[in-house]
Amino acid sequence: MTASGVVLGGAVVAGPLSAYQARHVMLNVSGGIAWVTLNRPERKNPLTFESYGELTAIFRAARTDGEVKAFILSGEGGNFSSGGDVHDIIGPLVAMKTTDLLRFTEMTGDLVKAMRACPQPIIAAVDGICVGAGAIMAMASDMRLAAPEAKVAFLFNRVGLAGCDMGACAILPRIIGQGRASELLFTGRAMGADEGERWGFFSRIVPAEELADAATLLAQRIVDGPTFANGVTKRMLHMEWAMSVDDAIESEAIAQALCMTTEDFARAYHAFVAKEKPVFKGD
Amino acid sequence: MTASGVVLGGAVVAGPLSAYQARHVMLNVSGGIAWVTLNRPERKNPLTFESYGELTAIFRAARTDGEVKAFILSGEGGNFSSGGDVHDIIGPLVAMKTTDLLRFTEMTGDLVKAMRACPQPIIAAVDGICVGAGAIMAMASDMRLAAPEAKVAFLFNRVGLAGCDMGACAILPRIIGQGRASELLFTGRAMGADEGERWGFFSRIVPAEELADAATLLAQRIVDGPTFANGVTKRMLHMEWAMSVDDAIESEAIAQALCMTTEDFARAYHAFVAKEKPVFKGD
Amino acid sequence: MTASGVVLGGAVVAGPLSAYQARHVMLNVSGGIAWVTLNRPERKNPLTFESYGELTAIFRAARTDGEVKAFILSGEGGNFSSGGDVHDIIGPLVAMKTTDLLRFTEMTGDLVKAMRACPQPIIAAVDGICVGAGAIMAMASDMRLAAPEAKVAFLFNRVGLAGCDMGACAILPRIIGQGRASELLFTGRAMGADEGERWGFFSRIVPAEELADAATLLAQRIVDGPTFANGVTKRMLHMEWAMSVDDAIESEAIAQALCMTTEDFARAYHAFVAKEKPVFKGD
Repeated sequence: MTASGVVLGGAVVAGPLSAYQARHVMLNVSGGIAWVTLNRPERKNPLTFESYGELTAIFRAARTDGEVKAFILSGEGGNFSSGGDVHDIIGPLVAMKTTDLLRFTEMTGDLVKAMRACPQPIIAAVDGICVGAGAIMAMASDMRLAAPEAKVAFLFNRVGLAGCDMGACAILPRIIGQGRASELLFTGRAMGADEGERWGFFSRIVPAEELADAATLLAQRIVDGPTFANGVTKRMLHMEWAMSVDDAIESEAIAQALCMTTEDFARAYHAFVAKEKPVFKGD
Repeated sequence: MTASGVVLGGAVVAGPLSAYQARHVMLNVSGGIAWVTLNRPERKNPLTFESYGELTAIFRAARTDGEVKAFILSGEGGNFSSGGDVHDIIGPLVAMKTTDLLRFTEMTGDLVKAMRACPQPIIAAVDGICVGAGAIMAMASDMRLAAPEAKVAFLFNRVGLAGCDMGACAILPRIIGQGRASELLFTGRAMGADEGERWGFFSRIVPAEELADAATLLAQRIVDGPTFANGVTKRMLHMEWAMSVDDAIESEAIAQALCMTTEDFARAYHAFVAKEKPVFKGD
Repeated sequence: MTASGVVLGGAVVAGPLSAYQARHVMLNVSGGIAWVTLNRPERKNPLTFESYGELTAIFRAARTDGEVKAFILSGEGGNFSSGGDVHDIIGPLVAMKTTDLLRFTEMTGDLVKAMRACPQPIIAAVDGICVGAGAIMAMASDMRLAAPEAKVAFLFNRVGLAGCDMGACAILPRIIGQGRASELLFTGRAMGADEGERWGFFSRIVPAEELADAATLLAQRIVDGPTFANGVTKRMLHMEWAMSVDDAIESEAIAQALCMTTEDFARAYHAFVAKEKPVFKGD
């Protein structure tokens, strides 16, 4: 608690992510992949003010991190995340004055902004409970894999709130369609893994015991690719969100010309001519 | 007919919807649910200038109605709607001068605007024929349930018109995808219930004889929820349509902070702590 | 090669498309349908600087062509297109300076702009390999039919480039959803015909030997329709891409009022009253 009644994050990551000692989530950087694991399994990995702040700091730091090329986001103990903790977050919010409420909602929004602004693709590996702010984190990732037991609920409506949380009314309809998103947001009901795959929320369903391997394999494929270009792809997916088609085409002409000046583009060409597999270096 | 050749709606609802005596459609308000039923079953419930006007008046009045918390939209006699009546609407339009044509198309567009601007979620219960302006009304609803016999056709192309009617070129692609929407709009062909469910147009298919009950159950769930917050969800789904992701996140921070100041948010928290089911009151 | 190192298109179509002798692709205009066929089957129909230029010239000329009412785009010899030719395009690009790179990416973007700006709906008939710029051309079409063997890969990532090529980061997510598009663009993996149909990329899968007939049938249906109105539908699908819902509704009111002043609208009405099938003339 601060003078204004609440600790709102404030974690700062100085230096490379691989050297950062996370305190409120688990962070493991290895071979270009950063695993971020929500790890309060006894309560299905709820978020707290502190973990919100630390997650935001991690994704912000990633923007200029030279080592991390892909993120995997998951939860410990068979669940992804139960969202904002009822006792640690909802309780204080109910007692909070308007100015602090806005500081809170802006802070949670900042997490999604940081996830969208870092160049690394983020893969969510979703098992079990994935609700509230947990569902938002899965939604704000670039790709999502599910275990068959995954249950995703944008349950804001069931805790007395609106579905417009951290970008959900903009992002969810673009992933699964406006009608399906409306139903989920107005009812707060859970979307199962099969439904999620059928609707385009999940790329694939894999058995729970293979989920970590599948996420690693996908992340490895990305790490082995032209990572500078991947960052440009992610940036343009974001920038073109509300652009006209013609403006998007112009923007891509510039962005792709930039990528054509990288060595990775030449590497791919020379490897092709030599009938070899290209080895990308991200520059 | 007016001096300029056509009666363009003009119905006004003064006072609460529950007290309004509808003349061109059926309106029944009970327990927070407003049922609007198109009821010229002998001609599959076509729309007329008068019913357009009255529907628009009803949804406009809903914006400030304190009693209605959800709408159900359906048709009498096993069909949803055959769209603009050939004799009552298409005939006069063919003879109309340009200035009146625009008055007509703006009036029909006003109906969709009113449906999107009212805070109550609208559930379309679609059985049988649902074509032309009928298909538009289903599309402009928030959620759609179908009977297996539902047939939805954006058939403007088949009556010599463009698919850009009452917002279809903007809204339909966001519900079912740009490619599928293009095919439906360029050919005017019917989309069946199964296809519609698979594409995200329909949330669910239920037997015709259970359609009314299923719509009521869904509406009841919404009425029992935090209805102020539901209205904010609907508003933000609309407002964020063409916003950048970052702007959408900022807008949601403000909108959700507003919802956190309502009693419903506190009610949900206290119910959770007391291990009870929350009773929302919409404030 | 020009002074600046590369021939960038430059083809001009003067006069009607039916009289144009294509040199780098095949063009056949008959009965209102223009078939454009990529025809270097021995290399799976790659694109060259010259074919890019000629394709753009064709679609630009279509904008004012009074004879062509629909396009079918396909490839010769069981494949759609292998994209930008590795030897004829990628090699030169690797050696090119920045100013020329941008001229190239703008030229490829111009092809998509021309495809979106012409009033004729474009049907892609996709068999076999459909990758890189080939996948883009399929994506930039209005409707897509597939043979079971179709394989579509936005493989830019595999040649060291970003997925933001010729509008892909804007258009692909609107066709198949943001999550699926992200996976395809970040991995470069192929999407099969079944998957493509399930995701809304393909309208339908037909046996390879029936693909041409199915495309012709669909094109014929469009040619037999109100072609002026079809052009307005295509225009509005494009214009409303990043418009608010209310602005889209206003724009459609104006566009549809325009269509109501055409003879085709009256023709449809009079045919209906006479219980006949309308014969549209496109005016």
